[in-house]
Amino acid sequence: MNDENQLSRKKFIQQASLAGAGLLLARPLPMFTQTTGVKNIKTKGYAAKDASGKLVPWEFERRAVGDSDILIEIKFTSICHSDIHTMKGDWGAQPYPQVPGHEIAGIVTAVGKKVTKFKVGDRAGVGCMVDSCMKCESCQHGEEQFCDNGATVFTYGFPDRISPSGISQGGYSNNIVVRDHFAVHIPDHISLEQAAPLLCAGITTYSPLINAGFKRGDKIGVAGIGGLGHLAVKLAVAKGADVYAFTTSPDKVKDILSFGVKEAILVDDVAKLKPYRKKLNYMISTIPAQFDVAAYASVLKRGGFFTQVGMPAGFNLTLNTIAFANTHVNFNASLIGGMPQTQEVIDYCADNKVFPQIQIIKAQQINDAWMKVINKEARFRYVIDAATF
Amino acid sequence: MNDENQLSRKKFIQQASLAGAGLLLARPLPMFTQTTGVKNIKTKGYAAKDASGKLVPWEFERRAVGDSDILIEIKFTSICHSDIHTMKGDWGAQPYPQVPGHEIAGIVTAVGKKVTKFKVGDRAGVGCMVDSCMKCESCQHGEEQFCDNGATVFTYGFPDRISPSGISQGGYSNNIVVRDHFAVHIPDHISLEQAAPLLCAGITTYSPLINAGFKRGDKIGVAGIGGLGHLAVKLAVAKGADVYAFTTSPDKVKDILSFGVKEAILVDDVAKLKPYRKKLNYMISTIPAQFDVAAYASVLKRGGFFTQVGMPAGFNLTLNTIAFANTHVNFNASLIGGMPQTQEVIDYCADNKVFPQIQIIKAQQINDAWMKVINKEARFRYVIDAATF
Repeated sequence: MNDENQLSRKKFIQQASLAGAGLLLARPLPMFTQTTGVKNIKTKGYAAKDASGKLVPWEFERRAVGDSDILIEIKFTSICHSDIHTMKGDWGAQPYPQVPGHEIAGIVTAVGKKVTKFKVGDRAGVGCMVDSCMKCESCQHGEEQFCDNGATVFTYGFPDRISPSGISQGGYSNNIVVRDHFAVHIPDHISLEQAAPLLCAGITTYSPLINAGFKRGDKIGVAGIGGLGHLAVKLAVAKGADVYAFTTSPDKVKDILSFGVKEAILVDDVAKLKPYRKKLNYMISTIPAQFDVAAYASVLKRGGFFTQVGMPAGFNLTLNTIAFANTHVNFNASLIGGMPQTQEVIDYCADNKVFPQIQIIKAQQINDAWMKVINKEARFRYVIDAATF
Repeated sequence: MNDENQLSRKKFIQQASLAGAGLLLARPLPMFTQTTGVKNIKTKGYAAKDASGKLVPWEFERRAVGDSDILIEIKFTSICHSDIHTMKGDWGAQPYPQVPGHEIAGIVTAVGKKVTKFKVGDRAGVGCMVDSCMKCESCQHGEEQFCDNGATVFTYGFPDRISPSGISQGGYSNNIVVRDHFAVHIPDHISLEQAAPLLCAGITTYSPLINAGFKRGDKIGVAGIGGLGHLAVKLAVAKGADVYAFTTSPDKVKDILSFGVKEAILVDDVAKLKPYRKKLNYMISTIPAQFDVAAYASVLKRGGFFTQVGMPAGFNLTLNTIAFANTHVNFNASLIGGMPQTQEVIDYCADNKVFPQIQIIKAQQINDAWMKVINKEARFRYVIDAATF
């Protein structure tokens, strides 16, 4: 963010405060306890102060609750590998301090005066984005992550004029203020801790699986069985697919089999993919690193589709063009999903008892948990108890 | 190739010669002037002796004409950028001396005793491959370039036990011996010099265009307007598409407009692609180097298909996964085409007067022509007059 933006942001906040003060005099005070606020919200969380990949406790402020905002008291936030990639600068240099976290579940404790979507006491979730223009073709089409005006604000580390710290700050914290459109309802029949991972891992795998339009009994491959992959497996199994799970971790095989897959294949050598050549209808890869894409894609039938959702360092993935020509496979990529589909996956998982496999941890265990995620030791999603911040 | 193969090859040739000598005594001599031969064929051509990218005159031998072989007196061979990439080792270390060239047109001057597809005097062409198993699913499906048994022998530089030099030797020469299945008929209503470039540039662009199944009036993009690209343009125009040609060479624009395109777009900056965002139905890229694939793919409608046929150094192409997620485009790759489709493109071009734009050169001009190809100065295909070898 440049200095001009910093200045504009400060001016904006100052002006907003003055306007709020005027408003305060004109309206009865009790209104503000649950509606549009004038004061920034104090927040406790864990932040990265640099690219070391270590987080430390940090107290900061959220913006006051705007007319279209809700304030959520966070109960649980889960750890996504993206949090680690981002804080370490793998996807570009970052501003610090920065609070990661985009799998957020909690309770609404205040709503802006224009908000009708939520009321205080509602169970709500926030995923990977917190704002967009909401007017362009992509936004109107329910794909706010691809706002044609480039106005998508992702949940952490994005320039955000209305955030007191100048950037969006994520969910490793005890509250969040968010425009109502960018929060989803969490049904009563799913726990908040189980709902949290659906906000990124769930929607990221659900969206391409749904868009692939597979039929019951189709053979679906899932490559990389971590936080995202294990949900891709569970969702595809729930939707009636014969699921082939490809993992490089021998000690995950037993867990994977318990998810109802047709086969769990240990790919300790790409040669292990050969017996599956041209057998599958569709494949989703959650592998967040460079890998032999064409070798995995070779398990697909001629003309099949391969969707990459894992994002490698630099967002760059190198394909072997000769091998791709040989397989006749179509490669595409998918990034999270829009707000309507995010609500859909939460409802679907609650209704169909598709629950992530989670381990609840305290804030003080985040750094250890991150090391385990990096070392592929997570089984399969760490969920932080926000009461411990 | 290892020593054992070298030895086996020599033994094979020796045994074949002995067997041939026996045969010679048992049959009337005139048979051999047009049928299965016993003696290697002397050949003059231009070869790379190292990875310098320079060719020198070289005399070598082709195998004797086998039962299923034909001998073609080469009349014209055109220059493909792949020749240069291969000889320089861009796609892997090469054996030398090696004769490049896989766009070959000439006259059949001898046929093996089992050959029924050709007779002496026929006009014949050879493209990018000269052998395969012909029994596997891919070969049976007419995609011999993807032989499931890995038995495809590409036209130059491939280990080839029955070649006197131990590798296949290409068409920068005055004759070639090839299994009849891997030669195509060149109709009378196309000149041999115009037919030559169709054997690689033609089939490489025709195959994905046909497989894309576009309709008349569809908007087709062609990225990279060189030897392959200008044929992609002409083929798509002939098939009734509205063609958008994207080039980085300002001085190609006038030529491109003469090919009947809807628009010729000079992409001296990827920002020039923005006005075409989400407008096209299909795109083929002939760019044989790393480029911003996602930027080009962004001109396609949601869910559109992008086919890469240009092969960059190392056959590796790096895609930006976030940008690909944004465009919803499907990336695939295509490598030449099978023999049935190669015959199809020759017939189609002859019937519909789709002729490459060529410049005929002498063998002695090859090295200069290569420099011009590298410098994007070819307009659009150099064709070597084989009488000058």
